Order: sequence, then C-alpha cells, then structure tokens
Amino acid sequence: MVNTDTTATTSPQEDQFTVVGTRPNRHDGVDKVTGKARYSADTQLSAMLWGKILRSPYAHARIKSIDTTAALDLPGVKAVVTRDDMPEVSPDIADLGEGAAANYGFYSRNVMAREKALYKGHAVAAVAATTLDIAEQALGLIEVDYEVLPPVLDPVDAMQEGAPILHDRLLQMASPAFRVGGYGDSGSKTNISNKFEFQLGDLEQGLRDADVTIEREFQTKAVHQGYIEPHAATAYWSNDGYLTVWCSSQSHFGFRDHISRILDLPYSRVKVVPMEIGGGFGAKGAGGVYLEPVAATLSKKSGQPVKITMSRTEVFIGTGPTSATHIRVKMGATKDGRLTAAEAELVYSAGAFPGSPVGGACRTMFAPYVIPNAQIVAFDVVNNVPKAAAYRAPGSPAAAFAVESVVDELCRELNMDAIEFRLLNASKEGTRQVPGPIFGNIGNVEVLEAAKHHIHYNAPRHSPFAKDGLYRGRGVASGAWMNGSGPASAVVSMNPDGTVSLVEGAPDIGGSRAAMAMHVAEVLGVPAEDVRPAIVDTDSIGYSSGAGGSGVTFKMGIACYEAAQDVVRQLTDRAAKIWDVAPENVEYKSGLLRHREDSELSITLKDLAARLNGTGGPIVGRGTVNPSGVGNAFAHHIVDVEVDRATGKVEILRYTAIQDVGRAIHPTYVEGQIQGGAVQGIGWALNEEYIFTQDGSMANATFLDYRMPTSLDLPMIDTVLVEVPNPGHPFGVRGVGEVPIVPPMAAVANAIYDAVGVRLTELPMSPVKVLEALK
Amino acid sequence: MVNTDTTATTSPQEDQFTVVGTRPNRHDGVDKVTGKARYSADTQLSAMLWGKILRSPYAHARIKSIDTTAALDLPGVKAVVTRDDMPEVSPDIADLGEGAAANYGFYSRNVMAREKALYKGHAVAAVAATTLDIAEQALGLIEVDYEVLPPVLDPVDAMQEGAPILHDRLLQMASPAFRVGGYGDSGSKTNISNKFEFQLGDLEQGLRDADVTIEREFQTKAVHQGYIEPHAATAYWSNDGYLTVWCSSQSHFGFRDHISRILDLPYSRVKVVPMEIGGGFGAKGAGGVYLEPVAATLSKKSGQPVKITMSRTEVFIGTGPTSATHIRVKMGATKDGRLTAAEAELVYSAGAFPGSPVGGACRTMFAPYVIPNAQIVAFDVVNNVPKAAAYRAPGSPAAAFAVESVVDELCRELNMDAIEFRLLNASKEGTRQVPGPIFGNIGNVEVLEAAKHHIHYNAPRHSPFAKDGLYRGRGVASGAWMNGSGPASAVVSMNPDGTVSLVEGAPDIGGSRAAMAMHVAEVLGVPAEDVRPAIVDTDSIGYSSGAGGSGVTFKMGIACYEAAQDVVRQLTDRAAKIWDVAPENVEYKSGLLRHREDSELSITLKDLAARLNGTGGPIVGRGTVNPSGVGNAFAHHIVDVEVDRATGKVEILRYTAIQDVGRAIHPTYVEGQIQGGAVQGIGWALNEEYIFTQDGSMANATFLDYRMPTSLDLPMIDTVLVEVPNPGHPFGVRGVGEVPIVPPMAAVANAIYDAVGVRLTELPMSPVKVLEALK
Repeated sequence: MVNTDTTATTSPQEDQFTVVGTRPNRHDGVDKVTGKARYSADTQLSAMLWGKILRSPYAHARIKSIDTTAALDLPGVKAVVTRDDMPEVSPDIADLGEGAAANYGFYSRNVMAREKALYKGHAVAAVAATTLDIAEQALGLIEVDYEVLPPVLDPVDAMQEGAPILHDRLLQMASPAFRVGGYGDSGSKTNISNKFEFQLGDLEQGLRDADVTIEREFQTKAVHQGYIEPHAATAYWSNDGYLTVWCSSQSHFGFRDHISRILDLPYSRVKVVPMEIGGGFGAKGAGGVYLEPVAATLSKKSGQPVKITMSRTEVFIGTGPTSATHIRVKMGATKDGRLTAAEAELVYSAGAFPGSPVGGACRTMFAPYVIPNAQIVAFDVVNNVPKAAAYRAPGSPAAAFAVESVVDELCRELNMDAIEFRLLNASKEGTRQVPGPIFGNIGNVEVLEAAKHHIHYNAPRHSPFAKDGLYRGRGVASGAWMNGSGPASAVVSMNPDGTVSLVEGAPDIGGSRAAMAMHVAEVLGVPAEDVRPAIVDTDSIGYSSGAGGSGVTFKMGIACYEAAQDVVRQLTDRAAKIWDVAPENVEYKSGLLRHREDSELSITLKDLAARLNGTGGPIVGRGTVNPSGVGNAFAHHIVDVEVDRATGKVEILRYTAIQDVGRAIHPTYVEGQIQGGAVQGIGWALNEEYIFTQDGSMANATFLDYRMPTSLDLPMIDTVLVEVPNPGHPFGVRGVGEVPIVPPMAAVANAIYDAVGVRLTELPMSPVKVLEALK
Repeated sequence: MVNTDTTATTSPQEDQFTVVGTRPNRHDGVDKVTGKARYSADTQLSAMLWGKILRSPYAHARIKSIDTTAALDLPGVKAVVTRDDMPEVSPDIADLGEGAAANYGFYSRNVMAREKALYKGHAVAAVAATTLDIAEQALGLIEVDYEVLPPVLDPVDAMQEGAPILHDRLLQMASPAFRVGGYGDSGSKTNISNKFEFQLGDLEQGLRDADVTIEREFQTKAVHQGYIEPHAATAYWSNDGYLTVWCSSQSHFGFRDHISRILDLPYSRVKVVPMEIGGGFGAKGAGGVYLEPVAATLSKKSGQPVKITMSRTEVFIGTGPTSATHIRVKMGATKDGRLTAAEAELVYSAGAFPGSPVGGACRTMFAPYVIPNAQIVAFDVVNNVPKAAAYRAPGSPAAAFAVESVVDELCRELNMDAIEFRLLNASKEGTRQVPGPIFGNIGNVEVLEAAKHHIHYNAPRHSPFAKDGLYRGRGVASGAWMNGSGPASAVVSMNPDGTVSLVEGAPDIGGSRAAMAMHVAEVLGVPAEDVRPAIVDTDSIGYSSGAGGSGVTFKMGIACYEAAQDVVRQLTDRAAKIWDVAPENVEYKSGLLRHREDSELSITLKDLAARLNGTGGPIVGRGTVNPSGVGNAFAHHIVDVEVDRATGKVEILRYTAIQDVGRAIHPTYVEGQIQGGAVQGIGWALNEEYIFTQDGSMANATFLDYRMPTSLDLPMIDTVLVEVPNPGHPFGVRGVGEVPIVPPMAAVANAIYDAVGVRLTELPMSPVKVLEALK
C-alpha cells in the first residue's frame, strides 16, 4: 500500500535522528512473503499426535459425567483429556504480587469446562490420536451427560432479577469493588461480576449549568478480532517434567505464566517457543490461552508431542470476541460550547467468565474533553456466550461510538463546527480525567489542529453530483487510548563484522523487529540492516511482557535503547583500555570512537568489533526495564460516506486518520497500524456482529457469513502522523496500535447523519439497520 | 558407570563450595536418553531436499572438466554443485586480526576440490534431489574428466626429492617459518608445508653430560576420532541473502566464521543453529566444516533447504583423522637419574592440505620434565590422504608415545623406579619448557605423588598365576596438555520463581550444560537444578569460541560466573532500592539478601525474584570474557597388561588414570572425560589404524574393519582426580578433556615391555606387530 497523503505535521527536530523516522525493509519481510516464516500450525515434531477438542452443544448445561471409554478404545487414539485430568485451580483471586491479581480458576475453566458448560463451543474434552481423522471420529465416541439449563445471552437480560445464574460464587456486592472478579460475601447470586463508579465534580450542578443536554442510548454487538491465523498449539511434556509449548501469541511470557498457573507447574518448568503470529489484536495476549494446557495434558498422558489447531468456526465459537454493550450517555454544554457535564452508564458483556473491557471504556470515553462534572457507572456482566477477549483498545470503541455521537449532536444543536467544539473543550497537559488521573504531555490539541487544517476537512462537504438515491455526508470523531507499558528485556551482541544481533522477548505482531532494530541502530549510529533482531523463547531472554496495549515499541524500545547504550559503554571502555586512557575521555558517535582531545586516537566500530576477542572478550549489552512515562494516544478521524437510500448500503468514499504518534520510529508500520485500526473500526461500524440464535448458537460462524471489509470495500485510508514527542521515551514514542480503532464507528455514524439526517445508535450500521432508520 | 576407586587427593578447601564438586543429574540427560534431543541429522524442514556428495576415486588427480548435464536432466534433481558454483577463495593466508591467521583457500578446496582431487574421497561435486535415492543415482551421471597423477601416502616419502608434489604453491623455505601454511618465495616445490625448530640450552653439551642416552624411532598411523554421530548438515539460503545452517559442531560460532569465509559472506549473514553433537573429540571444531558450504550452495541454487548426511565410510574417507607420524627421540641422563638432554625430530602427515598438529606435539612432549638442553625439529608434510583434523590433545599422544617409551628405557637402564625418576625430573611452577614458556602453577608433582602412593602402583607387579603363554606386566606414562581458552559469552535471566535461565554460546559435548549451570548456581547459592541452561544460535548470544582445547569449562565457566555476579550486583541494587539504602550495605549470600547492619531488612532471592517487574524491571546478567590464566594439565596413567605370546593379543587387566583437574566442577563428567580419553588412547595403542592400499584407498573404512575398543575389551578405568586449583579460574578449573588420551600408548607399550621384554615402537601394537616383535 502506498500512502500518498501522509504528512508529518509536527516534527520539530527532524534532523536529530539518522535511523528513526526512516523506512528500511522489515527484517522478517522476505521470510514472511516467501512462506519461510513458521507460524504455530507449522510446528512439526516427530511422533507428533493430532489433538481435537470436543465442544459443548449447549450454551448452558451442567456436566454430570463424561464417559471416554469408547473413544479410548478406538485404534489410533492415544489419550483423552477431560476436566478430571487437569488440576482443579481455585477460582479465588490469585495475588500475583506487585499489585496484580488474576483468577486462574476462571481461566482454567474456560480452557476446559469443569462444573458447567457456559457457552456453546465451550471445551469439555479433548482427544489425541495418530491422525486428525481418528481424533475427530473419537470426539463422537465421548459421551457427555449434560443437564441442560436455560441460557442468558444479552448482558442487560443477565442483570435482571430471575435471570439464569452462571456462577454460584458471584454474589451481589455489599459495596462497589474495582477489581475484575471482585465479589463480596453478602447478598444474593448475580451475574453482575463487577461494578465501577467514577465521579468528578458535581454532576447535578453540571447538568444545571448546561444550556443544551443530549442523552442517547447505544447498543453494540460482539465482534471478533478476525485475525487471519486460527489458534494452534503444540506441546511436549517431557518425562523429566519440563513442558515445551510452540505457539503464536502476543506474549509468550504471558502464555508461559498462564500455562504454568493453569497446569500448576513452576514457571521455570514451562518453555514457550514463540512462533510467528498471524494477527492477534489483543486476543492472543495472555488471556488467549485456550489450546496450550489441553495439548500439554494430552502430551503428558500420551508421552508424545500433541498439536491442536482450530478451524475458523472454532475460533468464532471457542475464543473471545469483544463484548456486546449497552451504553447510555448524557452530556451538557453551555450555549457558547463549553462542556459542563457528562454522565454515562455502561453494561459490558463479559461472556462466560468475569472480565469485560468495561474498565478501559471508563478510562478513555471522555478523555478528549475537559469536563468539570461527570459520573460513570459501569457493569461487567457474565452471560452464556464465549468469554470476551481483548480487542484493540479494549472497551474504548463502543464507548467512543456513544460519546462521539452525542458530541456530534451537541455540535449540531449548538450549530458549532465539530472540530472547533472539540478544540474548545480539548483535554491537554494538566487536564484531570473523569476517572481521576491528570494528563501529562498529550497531543490532543495538535491532532485536532491538524484535522482542522487538513485538505480533507476543508474539501466540499456534499457533492453536488449525488446520483439518484445516493446521499453524501461527512463525519468526524475523536478517540483516546491510555497505551501501556510493562517489563521488557533485550540483549545486544556485537558481531566481529561490526553488525549486531539483537534478541528480545516480545513477539513481532506489526513490524516490531524493525522498530527494535532501529532503536539499536539509532544509538549505535549504524544502518538498521546492520542489526539482526530475533525473538527468542522464554528460556533464552529476560522476562518480557507482550506486544499489546500499544506498548511494545515503547517498553521494548527502551529496553533495546538501554541494551545498545550498554554496548556503547563497553565499546568506549574497550577503546580506552586499548589506548590506555580514561574511559570518560572516549566518545562514541555514529560508528566512530575517538579520544575527545587526542585526534590521533580514533577507531571505527567495525575495526574495534574485529578486535574484541583479543582485547578482553566479546561485547554483550543488556537492557531490562519496566518503564513508566507512557504517553497517551489521541486520534481524530474524518470520513466521507455515501448512503444508498434504496438499499441502506453505506459506502466509505474518503477516510483520513490523524493521530499523535509521539515519534514514528518506522513511519510505514505506524501508518499500517493506523490504516488497519481504521479498517477494523469500519468493519465494526458497518458489518461485523455475532448473530446468536435463541439457544446461544452463533449463526454466522464463518467468514462467508461474518462479513469483514475487504480491500474492494474501502478507499485508501489516508494517515497523518502528528509527532508530539513523549518525554517518557528517549525518542518520543507513544504507542500507536490501538487508538485508530476508536473513532471510526462514531465518525461513520456522524457522517451517515450528515448524509441522510438519521441518528443510528446501534452497531453494526448494516443496510437493514440503515433502511429501518430511514423509514 | 560407577567408579568405585575415585578419590580426590588434593582438595584443600572442600567445604568452600556448595554446588561445585557435587554430582547433579545433567540437565539434558532425559532428553538424551529418551531420544528427544535433536542431532544434526534430525533436522527436518518443509520442502527439504537431500544432498549427496560425489567423491574422487583417485588419491591424486587433476580435474580437467566436470559435465553435470545428465545429472541435471534426471527427474527429481534440483541442483548440482561443483567448484564452479563456489567462490574461488584465495589460498593466501587470511589475516583474521588479533594475531590469528588461516588459509581459507585450503579449507575451501578441502570442502570442494578445485584444481585437483588430493585424496580418495575428496569431494568433487554434489547433488540435491527430492529423494536420497535420486541424489545417489544422479552422482553416477556426473562425468568428471580426471588426469590421474601418482599419489604419495607416507609423509616421509612425501619429503623426498622427486616425490609427487601436491601443491604448486608450496616452496622450499628460505628460513624457518612458524606459521601453518607458511612458505617463502624462494626454493623449489615441496610437500613440506611447515618446519618448526625449538632450542633450549646446549644440546651437544647436554648429551656430553649424560651417562646414559637412549635414541629410538617411532611410527604411528592415522586414527580416526570415531565419534558416533556422522557429519550432517542442513542449510537454507533465503533469497534475502541470509543463510541458516543447522548442524552439530564443537563450535557453532567457529562454523559460522568458516562458512562465511568459504562462501564469501559477511559473518552476520550466516546463522548457525547448534544441534546436539554425538561426539567430536576435536574434529568437529571449526576445521570440521565439510558439508555446510556445499549444502548451502545447493540450497542457494535450488531455493530449497538441503540436508546432507555422511555414511560411516564417508566419515572415514572424507573427514580428517589425526596424523600419521614418524618420530625420533633421543634423551640422556646422568647415572643418578638427572635428565641432561633431549632431542626430537618429528614428521607429521598433514594430509591433503597443510596443517598437522605437530605444533601441539612440540609444545607438550617434554612438558613433564625439567630438561636443561633440548632441541626439537618438526615437519608438517602434505600427502595424498584426507586432511588431518584435530583429535583430543592434537599432536601430543604420538609424541608422548615416543618420549615416555624412551624415558621408560632410561629408567630401566638406570635401574630406577619409573615414578621416582619422573618425580626427580618433574617440571613444576617456574620450569622453562623446551619451546620457551615458563610454567605457572601446575600439578605435575602432585599427580606423580598420587600415582606413587596409589594402591594400583603398589599392588604386586607380576601375577604368579600367569596362565601358560600369558605374561603380565605393568607400565606407566605421563602426559601433558596446554589446555586452551577463548572468547565466551553467557547471559543469565532471572525467572519470577527465583530460578534462572542461562544461555551460552558453546555446545555441550561432555556435560557442559551441567558444569555451566553449576557455575551460576554456586554464585547464586541455589541448587544446580534451579538453573536451566540453553545453548543458542549464533544470532542469539555473544561470540563464543567452541568446546575444544579442554577450554570450555574454563572460559565459559568464567563467563557464567561473571554473568551470575552481574545478576548478584543487580539483585543487591534492587534490594537497596526497595529498602532505600546504599547498595554497598546490602550483601547477597546463598539466596538471601540482607542489610549488613539492619537485621530487619532481608529478603530471599525467591521473594525478590517475584517482585522484579514492579521494582524496575527484569534482571538479566551478562558475562563476556576471553580469559588468560589457563591452567596446564598433567596426567599419569598406570596399566597392567597380559600378553598372549601365542596370539600376540594384549589384554588390559587394570587401568588407573591420575590427573590434576584443578577443580572438578562435576566430578562424574570429569571422570567420564578421563575414562573416555584413556579408552580412546588404548584403542590407538592396540588396534586402531587407517590401512591404505598402494593407490591410497582406505581398506578398512567401516567400524567392522576399523577396530575400536568396546566395553567387552576393557576393564573399568579407575580415575583419581587430583585438585591443584588453577588460580586463573574463580573455582580453580583447569580443563580435563584432552590430557587423558596422551599417556595410554606409552603406558601400554611400557607394560608390554615389562611383560615380555620387547620394545614396540610402532602403533598400533596389534597382535601381528606383537608377534613379529616376539619373534
């Protein structure tokens, strides 16, 4: 894809970098386009068995007994695994130390149903056999005695008195809790697994101060991340008690930790070998452990390696989409356009086990604005659908759909320009957010300014050439995301030819090999091609959190920066030793070491690299960090649509995504992230949804029926990279991957309103919904 | 094997260690006994082709042309490679920097014959095909037009005027050169590729001072290292110019360097993935690159991965055994047993290209003795047999066979006890060696003292119960080896459960995973099982020289020690940060961090490990070294034999190997090294030899005809670990792998003399030779 319209509008010190901001070929590019890159399903081990999962046909059922006798008798079947073969992990919250907590009992029960099957597709048993055919045949021989229970599918239904209860242990809370899975010891059974409340200022006063208030209710459906690579895992449980797992993930250390906990093994007994990943978008973070503990247990029982791969349908019904939501938003402003109050109520479907991304929604929905008085009440609700998984800016897109639609109505009511209104109310450094924290350095204003002056925003809004029945409109919307951090480790080794090898512990899901190599190259002043990045297994590098939360370039970038600086320190020490001078008199710059005063003393990196072994040994640099100083991300999108009043079909005519990226290490991949996020948002806006039948079956569990946008459906997504450097990163990186999925739904809805004058409040805005609204 | 007779005689501070000196199970043990460990030939890649090598049927022939047309036409053949497909590497000496040099032109021509085939078995072409059968069939379709030349097989014959000349570029040297492959620009063509001369004191005066002189000539044959795993290599040359090679070796970095040079690629374009190694004994060090560049070139031409494996016969005829030798030794002593003079002349066969281990012979043959006056003249000679490769203490065993036999005769002539004589003349710290250097701390005397007092040496020498025709005798011999060092890199990562992962860059050929883990465990004060060692590819760790020269435990041990110390430093810094105290007030000992003065402040390693991410990030320690301070190794062996005068068969009745190991990190593996070395020496002494027909064919190129000792041929080899700690290593390690192969041949020869009164001067002392001598 060539993006002809990209301009970096804010790049104050462009010439300070030699590598950062350039566009070298990605180091893994040839491997990926030639098919050499090995993905999870490519794992092939000798004596490997094929595993297959038996899934519940009921959305809600008690499992009374499982008889595996007939399956085990089938020739070729080597092992059958049920709940009885896996450790019973306590569904109490595990304190992971360092303020972290998780409920591995829930994770474990999602991997293999224990007391009940909680959604149609929930794993209830698994088989390993010499061929896939035999494994599939054996599934039919497993007899599960179910007591079928009534399911509850919609989260609001699930909150009602008398709704079918999923978990006996969830009780009405005596007081609000702010932890996923939190529940008290009083009250009656409930499906409300968490409730969050945030207050800022005085909501009632704020509403009284408003000249205009708008209140709307919104609904969004579950949508799947739709990664091209289905889940697959291979495990070998050696008889010395070491488990090796080959799988793709966004976080092989996270997978190691989850697998260890679910299988009750010490962390150090599990090695996860990272395979290439064909998309994850949040869902292949640590929460994406589904097959691995099952393959491991099958391997333990059979003594052979076991591979399990999912079909596309299994991915849809057996893994987590994001939450369906119900959201009510009320906002008020003075007649001169100042926001005075905002109120929101959110209900997010968690699926079978607690843990929707509603917290992320609360933290970001009002982030683009200064709002003196606000209140958010949010519910995490369990229901009989697959457990929700993270999806790009988890929680934020649905909430932004609501808020940005309401803001659009406010602007129309106030007769104000949508961007001027947002600039007037824009959050900036020092703004207190509704959930509490105060913003540091952010680029919200710069993004809005860039949008306001963009050629797209200033192009004629309505084409005078609309064909019969076709109406055109323009919409805009803002979006915010926190971005994340975490522990990261990198090791840089000097090669004798002056190139370096880089090993790091976070998977490359979107070009991070290149971005990491560029961090090292920038510090060393060498071409990016001279740095060879590798992502190694959990036994071969220090702890590293995954590629998620838009954090990998930030945190792993800093680890790479520190590792390279460690190399530079050793290089200068080495030169000082050779020259017999004090190390502080040696400086390193752009591949040259020289004495600060004695111009006779200089040596190139390449020449010194060839002399390391004889002057004290090799040089290896390490960087291990868990950085604070994350930079928040803001985006503003502009979209032109054309609505066919006859069919209800909405066509995207033009799309521009403007975003503060802090610093684009490799602009091509930053643009790709923004384009990808926008496209996924457009799919969510117009077409994608889980359609459930009354009994909880997903009616469209194939890519034929679950409609994602293709390149034929879309124009080129133009991107504008605004660079307001994040002071928390040595080069200014913020993190770019998630925020671009936040604005599209509202931007499209606002454009549809602009075109045909109807306000759509339910996603997807599919032809049938548009037609209904037009009626 | 259980060794019941092992006693560590010198271990002054036994209780100073908690892990060093214990015998934990090796970390790779289960993998190896269950077949999970993956060796070179186990490599399996999708779309992989099978390669096969065409080998010269002539020991000496000019290659006029090669026609590959018919082979390429065979369906299934994907590529054919000849000399024309590989870079023509200059046969000038390449300056590798840091004082190192090598002739990659010679290495390259050994990998694929260019101008001439120089031995029967020399590679002349290679094929890659979809099956092994097709590849083998295609070899028969390659037409090579040879001009057959007369071969020369014996190195002494090769030195004679008028001998067939192998290399036009080797010329009689104007002056002595001390570099392998050195040759001047004057003189006529020659097969003498190098000449070494060493002088100490005044030889003539020393001989005049002697009351007794003994002069003998010795001959030894080429013997093969006989590793159980034949050579195998798989290569994939990606079309972005990166080459990945999977192979077993003693030095994957050495292989990377050699492959890069031979293929004219930058080091950083080649990644070598270390597979497990089934024995190398020196021959799979960097000089053991045979198949890799060929598989790589086949892959480059075919675009697919290519695997080549050797048959056992190919190993015999296509890889390097050690040199055949002719050695003359003359030694003189006073009548009270003081050595006054020693003289030696050595001719070592280099095989087809320069580079026998004669230098190693010169440096060690007289090392056990104080000799005031000495001279060594040594020749490296090319001849039409496979290029000699390193074999355990390269050069030393044949030379020790000569010297220790002559010493035995001196003792008999002087009527002195063999060990008393050696003690009287024993080299020690401060002794100047014949080739020049002065010994540092060595354990020669301690070894001899241990031998003198050993129950074996003091047992009745001759059984009174000899059966008819069976005669028993006892022999002893000393041996010395320099031991080696080199660059080494290790990285230690802390796991959240307090265990650690260790990555290192030297292959494990004899238990070094355990020894390396124990270095780390000793520093951290944790069990060896808590350290998980991994050997990673050349892109994933700093430069590391290989497992060879008895150096890996020394050099990589120090790297591991330093990496662990780096972890300890960071742990104390982290605790200091948590407690807000100065790091120098925190001490680390045996898994506990505590404040030196405030007893309230303490935390276990396990507790701190769980808190790393939240207190600044992961901890990764690095160690990169190229240590001097190598400790030399000395051994003394005692053997009892029984000679069957009717058949000439020699049976080993009892064998004791005493050795200064400096410090045995893992005594079981040290004992195993000593036992293995002694057994290989016994095979060399009694049975093993390359038998060439007149035209240069090896007549016994299978394990049926090339007779290595089996467990049925041998008694348990008893070992005595003398520990004279090497001050150059933090725990005192010297290196143990090579010296045990040095004494056996002479010890057995001396025992045969003791039994039947005949002096054997040719190896192997096979039944036919013993019978001849008895006649």
